[in-house]
Amino acid sequence: MREARMEKIEQTIASIQSLNGKAMEEARRRQDCLTKPRGSMGQLEALSIQIAGIRGNPRPKIKHKIIFTLAGDHGIVQEGVSAYPSEVTPQMVYNFLQGGAGINVLSRLVGARVVVADLGVAVNLKHHPDLKEKKVAPGTRNLAKGPAMSRAEAIRSIEMGIELVEEELPKGMDIMGTGDMGIGNTTSSSAITAILTGAEVSRVTGRGTGLDAEGWRRKMGVIERALEINQPDPKDPIDVLARVGGLEIGGIVGVILAGARYRIPVVIDGFISGAAALIAAGLSPQITPFLIAAHQSDEPGHRILLGHLGLKPLVNLGLRLGEGTGAALGIFLAEASVRILDEMATFSEAGVSEKI
Amino acid sequence: MREARMEKIEQTIASIQSLNGKAMEEARRRQDCLTKPRGSMGQLEALSIQIAGIRGNPRPKIKHKIIFTLAGDHGIVQEGVSAYPSEVTPQMVYNFLQGGAGINVLSRLVGARVVVADLGVAVNLKHHPDLKEKKVAPGTRNLAKGPAMSRAEAIRSIEMGIELVEEELPKGMDIMGTGDMGIGNTTSSSAITAILTGAEVSRVTGRGTGLDAEGWRRKMGVIERALEINQPDPKDPIDVLARVGGLEIGGIVGVILAGARYRIPVVIDGFISGAAALIAAGLSPQITPFLIAAHQSDEPGHRILLGHLGLKPLVNLGLRLGEGTGAALGIFLAEASVRILDEMATFSEAGVSEKI
Repeated sequence: MREARMEKIEQTIASIQSLNGKAMEEARRRQDCLTKPRGSMGQLEALSIQIAGIRGNPRPKIKHKIIFTLAGDHGIVQEGVSAYPSEVTPQMVYNFLQGGAGINVLSRLVGARVVVADLGVAVNLKHHPDLKEKKVAPGTRNLAKGPAMSRAEAIRSIEMGIELVEEELPKGMDIMGTGDMGIGNTTSSSAITAILTGAEVSRVTGRGTGLDAEGWRRKMGVIERALEINQPDPKDPIDVLARVGGLEIGGIVGVILAGARYRIPVVIDGFISGAAALIAAGLSPQITPFLIAAHQSDEPGHRILLGHLGLKPLVNLGLRLGEGTGAALGIFLAEASVRILDEMATFSEAGVSEKI
Repeated sequence: MREARMEKIEQTIASIQSLNGKAMEEARRRQDCLTKPRGSMGQLEALSIQIAGIRGNPRPKIKHKIIFTLAGDHGIVQEGVSAYPSEVTPQMVYNFLQGGAGINVLSRLVGARVVVADLGVAVNLKHHPDLKEKKVAPGTRNLAKGPAMSRAEAIRSIEMGIELVEEELPKGMDIMGTGDMGIGNTTSSSAITAILTGAEVSRVTGRGTGLDAEGWRRKMGVIERALEINQPDPKDPIDVLARVGGLEIGGIVGVILAGARYRIPVVIDGFISGAAALIAAGLSPQITPFLIAAHQSDEPGHRILLGHLGLKPLVNLGLRLGEGTGAALGIFLAEASVRILDEMATFSEAGVSEKI
């Protein structure tokens, strides 16, 4: 029974292969022939080689860029863990569809297309040609009182994420970013991070969108209670997602799994996407080579989860907006890295002398 | 006599004004009304407010982007302080003009125009419509044996930098980046940093384009000797430039002064541009609010000089190429910051609820 229902997820995971070592070796050799001191583009050189390995192409191009911004609501908000009310989730979805949000601005700048999906907004959203309707449930339940969702819902949310990628693939996809919108979702992400990294709740809980000191203490208490009541099994990532996760987080797990399966570099945004990456890596450690950590967010748990995943963020600008805004910046840097690899002249092409 | 010859520099400095506080205040207010938690775009919010103050416009636009890449040779190379021979300086200038260098690739990506200028390449370069001929001298002299240049040459190099900006201004300039090409110029930059920050030579000397341990020790010895022989006066930045500087470094000093004078945000690249910024700030502390530090380079002296200038770099990617490549990335982030400020919807425009 359990196996049957996991079929799509298991098929996706079974199809994930390792990076292409030959493409990486060729890319590395080319980097060393370009008219610059070896290694002088630092982290961007390693990034270009990683992308070559993901794409199986020693000189990959990045043209089609997609950011998946997934929305869902959180029952935990009734515990007073967020500085904003739940109604902001649908309001921001409409803002995304009208092009007025941070993710829209940065996506336009970097030439990315934003795919907005409703994985679990509490209210019924108006139909819109650009809104992907993937609602699994009208928000999660209050995880301080019991499981946030059923195991079947958790699986369904991951499948929806896989579907989203598969629907967009035919339009072309050279890189993808992940993003989130969900009032209350840093609480879920802190809980997931505590469970899957083993870190103490106080070390992985931040102020989200702007809690004061009292709100922050309340949030930590709520997470402690949620872990106590739910007793999630850290060996079973689906169980963790079901008990303390979010529907948009499950969706991002699916997006990440599909990215790895279809060999698309996955630029993960901040803390929420990072929590989804923890779950995805729990399901299959083979996904991590496909991940690019866009930035180090201000949320304290983010540093811990990136360290756990062995990922080094590209930038650290104190961002904590989510939506995929950090991923948009990461997509720009990824494009910069492959353009360097592809477009720079070699020493012999340019007639430049090599090192003494 | 001395005053007369400094006239252009002094006029430029005298015309530098402070940032426009009213534009900054309006920009700050607008940031707080945009549909995101306050402060959630981190360092990019502060950057947009700084640019508003520089431009005197609460919603500045960045359209015309120029990167000044200045080239010069260094007599000190005969002491074996660089991993590459001096002939690479002109070879790379030709590479810039043909569009094959790192700076060309990144400038194309961010939509910037590269202005390449010869401030002091040792050989005569072929004429090229895109090469600005601003040669003050065919390279500096060996600063381990005496002054790198005369005081008149140092002044002339700064004036050339001011001229470069003034020649490009009529074509439109909303932001500028600085860049360098000059085999041997990290040695000069380390010497300048030691003198103007008071830091020990060993703390501000790195491996440049790729010295081994022996080369690195030799480089430190050469710098110690240069400081001993030249006895530059840290209170007189022109004297420092003349005794241990470079012609392209002097040019960048001029570019920075003119940027501040004409209220153009100046995105400084890495260690070489930072050393020029130290000299410029020595001439007029009023220039620093106009500076944006693009990145933290791998050169150890860079961190020290940025701290001395009170600048926080935008990214830290282990870059150490120069040419303005880091500045190109900084220009992208600056544009991202002002687009956020200008293009995002406000809470009331988007009908989004504010904080509880």
